[in-house]
Amino acid sequence: MGTRSLSSRSVAGQLVDRLVEIVGGEWVVRDPEGLEEYRHDATFMESAPLCAVRPGSTEEVAGVVAAAAAAGVPVVARGAGTSLVGGPVPLAAGVVVSLDRLTLLEVDAANTVATAGAGVITAALDEAAAAHGLMYPPDPASYGMSTIGGNVACNSGGMRCVKYGVTADYVIGMTVVLASGQVLRLGGKLRKRASGYRTMQLFIGSEGTLGIVTEVVVKLIPRPRHVATAMVGFRRLEDAGAAVARALAAGHFPAAIEILDRGSLELVADKLPPGFEPGLEAVLVVEQDGNDEESVQLDLMKMVEMLDGDDNRIAQSSLERERLWEARRSFGKVLMAMPKNFFAEDVAVPIAEIPEMIRRVQTLAARTGLRIVTVGHAGDGNLHPTILFEDAQRDLVSGAAAQIFRDALELGGSISAEHGLGALKRDYAELEHGALGMAVMKRIKDALDPAGILNPHKVFPEQAADDRFLESMPGWLPDPERRRRKAELGL
Amino acid sequence: MGTRSLSSRSVAGQLVDRLVEIVGGEWVVRDPEGLEEYRHDATFMESAPLCAVRPGSTEEVAGVVAAAAAAGVPVVARGAGTSLVGGPVPLAAGVVVSLDRLTLLEVDAANTVATAGAGVITAALDEAAAAHGLMYPPDPASYGMSTIGGNVACNSGGMRCVKYGVTADYVIGMTVVLASGQVLRLGGKLRKRASGYRTMQLFIGSEGTLGIVTEVVVKLIPRPRHVATAMVGFRRLEDAGAAVARALAAGHFPAAIEILDRGSLELVADKLPPGFEPGLEAVLVVEQDGNDEESVQLDLMKMVEMLDGDDNRIAQSSLERERLWEARRSFGKVLMAMPKNFFAEDVAVPIAEIPEMIRRVQTLAARTGLRIVTVGHAGDGNLHPTILFEDAQRDLVSGAAAQIFRDALELGGSISAEHGLGALKRDYAELEHGALGMAVMKRIKDALDPAGILNPHKVFPEQAADDRFLESMPGWLPDPERRRRKAELGL
Repeated sequence: MGTRSLSSRSVAGQLVDRLVEIVGGEWVVRDPEGLEEYRHDATFMESAPLCAVRPGSTEEVAGVVAAAAAAGVPVVARGAGTSLVGGPVPLAAGVVVSLDRLTLLEVDAANTVATAGAGVITAALDEAAAAHGLMYPPDPASYGMSTIGGNVACNSGGMRCVKYGVTADYVIGMTVVLASGQVLRLGGKLRKRASGYRTMQLFIGSEGTLGIVTEVVVKLIPRPRHVATAMVGFRRLEDAGAAVARALAAGHFPAAIEILDRGSLELVADKLPPGFEPGLEAVLVVEQDGNDEESVQLDLMKMVEMLDGDDNRIAQSSLERERLWEARRSFGKVLMAMPKNFFAEDVAVPIAEIPEMIRRVQTLAARTGLRIVTVGHAGDGNLHPTILFEDAQRDLVSGAAAQIFRDALELGGSISAEHGLGALKRDYAELEHGALGMAVMKRIKDALDPAGILNPHKVFPEQAADDRFLESMPGWLPDPERRRRKAELGL
Repeated sequence: MGTRSLSSRSVAGQLVDRLVEIVGGEWVVRDPEGLEEYRHDATFMESAPLCAVRPGSTEEVAGVVAAAAAAGVPVVARGAGTSLVGGPVPLAAGVVVSLDRLTLLEVDAANTVATAGAGVITAALDEAAAAHGLMYPPDPASYGMSTIGGNVACNSGGMRCVKYGVTADYVIGMTVVLASGQVLRLGGKLRKRASGYRTMQLFIGSEGTLGIVTEVVVKLIPRPRHVATAMVGFRRLEDAGAAVARALAAGHFPAAIEILDRGSLELVADKLPPGFEPGLEAVLVVEQDGNDEESVQLDLMKMVEMLDGDDNRIAQSSLERERLWEARRSFGKVLMAMPKNFFAEDVAVPIAEIPEMIRRVQTLAARTGLRIVTVGHAGDGNLHPTILFEDAQRDLVSGAAAQIFRDALELGGSISAEHGLGALKRDYAELEHGALGMAVMKRIKDALDPAGILNPHKVFPEQAADDRFLESMPGWLPDPERRRRKAELGL
C-alpha cells in the first residue's frame, strides 16, 4: 500500500480542512460519537476512521477522493453498513465516504430503466419501479435497509435471483469515481452493447476497491401480476436436493426455491403449517410468478407434483402465501431471540451438490459439537450454514467456518455467493481463485488504483488462510442492537 | 505494440518449427492456398498471417501463445470467421490460432449447465441443450455457423436477447489462455458468485485482445415448450416505436420483437402475408413463449391488442408461424440476390428512441441519395441500418456509416450492439467511451497484455475517426461466395 501514515497530525488536519471546503462543514463527521456508526458494519469487526464525509453529489465524491489521494490517505465507500464480511469497515482508518445523500431516483418507464444514486435503498428502487408496473428483481434479504450502491459493490443476490439473476445482470449504466478522483461515466440507458471492454462489470462486485460507484442505471422488467406459493416437505434430504435439480432441468422456472434443513426447521417448527409432517429432513418453499393467474397456479401445481415431496401445501390465498413464507422469513428473528451467538455463512455449490454440501455441514456439526443449521436459495445452490454457539465454543467457530469454505470449494463452489469477500474472507480467496487468478486480479487493482487508496485490506489475502480468520472473535456482536440488525440481514 | 518485426526470416522460421512441435505438423497451415481462409472474416478486410495453427487442446493453445510471445509475434484467435467488424483479420500478420478443433460438448442436466470448447458451433450447443429439455438462449443470426468462442469474444446477441439476455449473461465458467501463455481457469458450474473481481466478464467481449478463451461453462434454462408468433403492421413509424416501449412497460415480456422499416418491407414485400396492408411504415414480428400453450397464446393476443397496429396476423399453426417469420428471415437472402453492394450496420439506442433513430437514417438516405433500409431487434433498441449502393456511390458510404454512428451516440446509444468494434469501428470507440473510458480500457489492456501480443490493431483507436474508416472499400466483397456468407450473417 502506498498510503501515508497519519502520524503526521498536520496531514490529517489539512485533509479534513480540505474536505470541509469540498462538502461543507455540516457533512464532515469528526466527533467520536458521530463516528461510532462509521466504525463497523453488521459483523463484529470495527476500526475508527479519521473522519466520515457525506458528499451531496458525484462531483463532491470526486473532490473528496482527489483530496485524500493527494494526501495519501485511504478512502472507504459506505452504503448502509449492512455488509456481513467487513466490507465498509475502515481497517486502515482514513476517510469514510458515506453515499447516503446520493438519493436521486428516476424511473424512465418508456425505456424500462431507472437511474438511482448509490444511496437509494434497494427496496425503494423496486417500489418506484412497481409504481410503473415494473420490477427491479435482485432482492437481497437486507434490501429494506441496504443501498443499491452497496448491492452493486457486492454484486448482491437474493431469493428472486434463481429466475431473474443478480445485481450485475441489471446494471447498464454507471458513474464511478476512480482512485485519481476522475469521474468515469459508463454505459447508459441501453440494454445491449458490444462496444469495448466490459469495464462496468469490473467495478460491480469489486467492493469499492477499484472505484466508488455514485450512480447507476438499471434495467427493469415487467412486474409479474400474479404469484403462487407452495411448501413441500421431504423425509430425506437427498430427495429434496434431487427434486430441485430435476424440476429445473424439466422446464420449471420458479421465481424462488428456498430450502430449510432439519436443524433450521427445528428452530421455526411453530411457524410450519398446522399438521405439517413432523421429522422432515428438508422443506422447500417454492414460488411461481407470471401474468396469467390460472397458468401461474397451474405451473406451480405441476412443479409441486414433479418435486414429489412427502407433504405439500399450496397456498390458495395471499394470506396463505404469507403463512407459508413465515417459516423461512422468521428464521433470522428466531436466531436473534436465542441466547446463543451465531455466525452465518454464505457459500454456494452447483445445485446437484446441495444434498452433499448439507450432509457435510451436518457431519461437521456432529464432529465439533456445534449446532449448525442451514437455510438457502436452493435454486442457485446458495446456502447459508449458520453456526450457533455458546461463549465456550468460540474457538471452534473459526475452524468450522474454514471447513465449510473448503467443502464448498471441493464441490466446485464458492466461499461467497452474494456477500463478497471483504476483510472476513479475503485470506481464503486464493483457495478459490488460485495464485494466478489472484495475480490477475492484483494486476487489475494496480492498474486502476496504483497507490492502493481505495478500501485497503479488503478482497486480497494478507495472511495464509486460517492464520487470522475471526481473530477479533472476542468482540463478537457485543451490542444487542447490532445483533438485532444483523439478524434481519442476509439469512 | 511491443511486437517484433518479422523481417528477420529466422525468427519466423524458428517460431513455425516450434509450433509444429507443439501442435503437430498436420495442424500448422503455411501454404498460401491453405492460408486463404485465415486472411479474412465476413467483411472486406483481409491480411495474410505468417501461419495458422489448429491446436487440439487448451494446453496446445497455451504452448502456441507462449512460443509466439517469446518470439514477439502477434497471436490472433479465430472462431468461424463470421465477424462483421474485422475481428479475426490478422492485420499485424503473426499466428492465427483457429479454435475449431476444440469441440468438447457436455450437457450436465442435473446442474442445468453445459461445458463447451471454443470451437463448438452455437446452434449445436443449443441443440445439445434441447435434447435435455434445456435451452442456450443467445441466438446471433450467424449461430448456425459461428462458434461459442467467437460469441464470447464478441458478447454476441440475437433475437431472443430481449427476454433472455446476451452471451455475457450465460457464461459462468471459463478457461482462458493469457498473453503469457499461462492458463487461467475462472468460475465453474456455479450460478451465483460474489467472490473477487469479475475477471471472467472482462474477457467476454474483449475480442481476443486480453486472452484466448478456449472453453466455457454456460448456464442453460428450461426450454419453453410452446411458442406463439404474430405480425403487426403500422401505418406510422412513430406508432410502432411507441408501441414497443408501451408493451414492454405494461408487463409484456416477449421472446422476440423484430422490426422492419418501410425500406426493408419493400425488399421483402412478396414474403408478407396475403392481403397484408400495403404502404406500411413499419412491421413488428412478435413472439411469445412459455410452457402452457393456452396462456402463451393468450399473452400474445393481449400484447398484440396493446400494440394496437393497423394490420395484425396471429399464427394459428407452426406452418403459419414459419410464414410470418419468412419476411424477417429472408431479408439477408434478398439482399444477396440484389445487384447492389450493401453494408450492414449494428447500432443500438434506448428503446424509446427507435422511431427517432429510424427517422434520422431515412433523412440521411434522402440527403445522400443512398438507399438505406433498417431491420432490427426492437425490444433492445438494436438496429441494423443497411446501406445499399452502386459502385459509383462507394465514396458516400463511409460518411453515411459515420453519421449513423453519431446519430446513435447522440441518442444515448452505442456504435456496436452485438458485433464488437474489431478493426472496422475502433476509430469511433472514443466517441462512445470518451478519452477517460478509453484510457481505463488501455490500462487494463496493458496490465494483461503488456507486450501487445494479442490481436493487435483491434478495439483501440489508431487514427481520428473518419480518417481511415472503410479506406479499403475498393476491396469490397469481391468474391460472390463471401458475399453470400455475409448475407446470411448478422442481419
